[in-house]
Amino acid sequence: MVVITMATNQLLTESSILRMKNFNRELKFSRDWYPCKWLPMTLLNGRVNTQLQVGTLPCRKGALVVSPRISLPSTTLDLLEAFDDEYGGVIIDPGCLPSSSNAFVRLLRDSLSNWKLNRKRGIWLKILSEQSDLVPIAIKEGFNYHHAEPGYVMLTYWIPDEPSMLPDSPSHQIGVGGFVINEHKEVLVVKERQCPFHCSGIWKLPTGYINKSEEIFSGVVREVQEETGIETTFLEMIAFRHAHNMAFEKSDLFFVCMLKALSSDITIDEKEIEAAKWMPLDEFVGQEFYQDDHMLKKAIDICVATYENRYSGFIADQLISKLDGNLSYLYYNGLNKV
Amino acid sequence: MVVITMATNQLLTESSILRMKNFNRELKFSRDWYPCKWLPMTLLNGRVNTQLQVGTLPCRKGALVVSPRISLPSTTLDLLEAFDDEYGGVIIDPGCLPSSSNAFVRLLRDSLSNWKLNRKRGIWLKILSEQSDLVPIAIKEGFNYHHAEPGYVMLTYWIPDEPSMLPDSPSHQIGVGGFVINEHKEVLVVKERQCPFHCSGIWKLPTGYINKSEEIFSGVVREVQEETGIETTFLEMIAFRHAHNMAFEKSDLFFVCMLKALSSDITIDEKEIEAAKWMPLDEFVGQEFYQDDHMLKKAIDICVATYENRYSGFIADQLISKLDGNLSYLYYNGLNKV
Repeated sequence: MVVITMATNQLLTESSILRMKNFNRELKFSRDWYPCKWLPMTLLNGRVNTQLQVGTLPCRKGALVVSPRISLPSTTLDLLEAFDDEYGGVIIDPGCLPSSSNAFVRLLRDSLSNWKLNRKRGIWLKILSEQSDLVPIAIKEGFNYHHAEPGYVMLTYWIPDEPSMLPDSPSHQIGVGGFVINEHKEVLVVKERQCPFHCSGIWKLPTGYINKSEEIFSGVVREVQEETGIETTFLEMIAFRHAHNMAFEKSDLFFVCMLKALSSDITIDEKEIEAAKWMPLDEFVGQEFYQDDHMLKKAIDICVATYENRYSGFIADQLISKLDGNLSYLYYNGLNKV
Repeated sequence: MVVITMATNQLLTESSILRMKNFNRELKFSRDWYPCKWLPMTLLNGRVNTQLQVGTLPCRKGALVVSPRISLPSTTLDLLEAFDDEYGGVIIDPGCLPSSSNAFVRLLRDSLSNWKLNRKRGIWLKILSEQSDLVPIAIKEGFNYHHAEPGYVMLTYWIPDEPSMLPDSPSHQIGVGGFVINEHKEVLVVKERQCPFHCSGIWKLPTGYINKSEEIFSGVVREVQEETGIETTFLEMIAFRHAHNMAFEKSDLFFVCMLKALSSDITIDEKEIEAAKWMPLDEFVGQEFYQDDHMLKKAIDICVATYENRYSGFIADQLISKLDGNLSYLYYNGLNKV
């Protein structure tokens, strides 16, 4: 085992991990440890048992090529600092990009020539907001946008003379809607403030988008609570719709969930919701708008069938996988004995 | 009804539709007609019945404010051309951005002052790859990245003195895996070429990501066909896993589908697949790797239970919705009578 010790005043960043991964060995590290100040690591081949002082891993102008004996760098070409990925590609370190445009264009051109010579495949270049002067330079050198988020834009360059095999950018938003029915056979419904013309005036289920890294079953409970103040627990995911060409021409998966009410007093979120109430099931189902809409009618029929124990959807079951070492949720029909 | 006729030599672009939507009336148009040369449109209030010659809708420096009588523009401020969205925000027309950086910075500052005065909320600025010189200017004026795709980057600016209510960028990739079993009780399995260390040597189900705007049930049939040459039809989606912190720190929904084989001769895609074969079910299930992995073992147990008619998942049913006027698929338990 190799234990890599970091200076105690140094936060472990993504780029320093990438630099460590460049030691030409497969280093395994757990996401749980990151960011942290002390990072135990295991060499997967299991043949080395030593201590390695990484120190501050400063940015250097030049390719960091560490010899197999983890001594001094054996090569220092005047290139952008970058690391190989698992697919024959290269990830440029955003923490080590030069601030001068002239230096960047020279290093980028030399690096691209070097990667082409070495038959590299996809090149990944993450540019932070504060480095935005570099974006037009990279675009002019042949990079293309891949995806972006507040704080950065990711660009890619595909070297081989064949169609790009780089993965697409994320394609879907995940929406959730909660069907909550109380002991008086009343459904929890809302009127949204900013409903487009075709649904204005309609009493509908509370809905929303899940947050980053949020589970479907907890996202729907949160949305119902935020919009109406009603506390619930998740019972089942009973159906979902897959729609395309939504916002930004992307797609949308919308999960309808059966929830159990734990409270009854409604407090609306006045920013998003105009009104909320408990509506008798028959009145809710009978709204003309739903009767005319095949998709919504079917979804509501499924909600009612679930309520009447004539239907079973999917439960959420937390399981661990060796593949990524993480716990995640598997949704499946819990009624069947598997 | 208002019929808007376009010059026959003019392709209808997204920006010209946006400009038309700015007539301060709600215009309805079908995606099917776009792009086209003649575009019938209906005014939703139903009070107007006339013909409107739109002509070429050229880019103009100035806010295009068309009077309610659809005569000449009633205001021409020296601002970026932009259109109101349904949420109190503004969408800047990427087709009408100036090419000069100096002109852009002046127009952007004046426009932002104007929108602030007019209490606008979210500002959307799409910058095409060929306009990348404008990206650092917009960032320095306070815009932030929202999302990007090959060809463009989208930036946003939130005006109100409260947390942003703009939607997040797409958050999920959609993966699919196909469980195909033949009449000899053999499962279709593959060995992937670029499998990370922890799954190398494992015989697994054919998997992949769905394409842009592709359905889950057709994406899984395509992936199986591409990787193994085996033709199939979709029977059921039987379970899905929701995992986080995957590529680019985004999330991932992976749908396991039961497929019916329509052919038996395997032809592998040598770029992605090292080997593929029909493997006896008992041998497949008995692989040590699966027995040790709670998530994979559960998924495979569900596949076997589906094969043995002890389990039912979700079918895909195409339905139309009035909400967006589109056909899309609802996935639900088809075994229950709803």
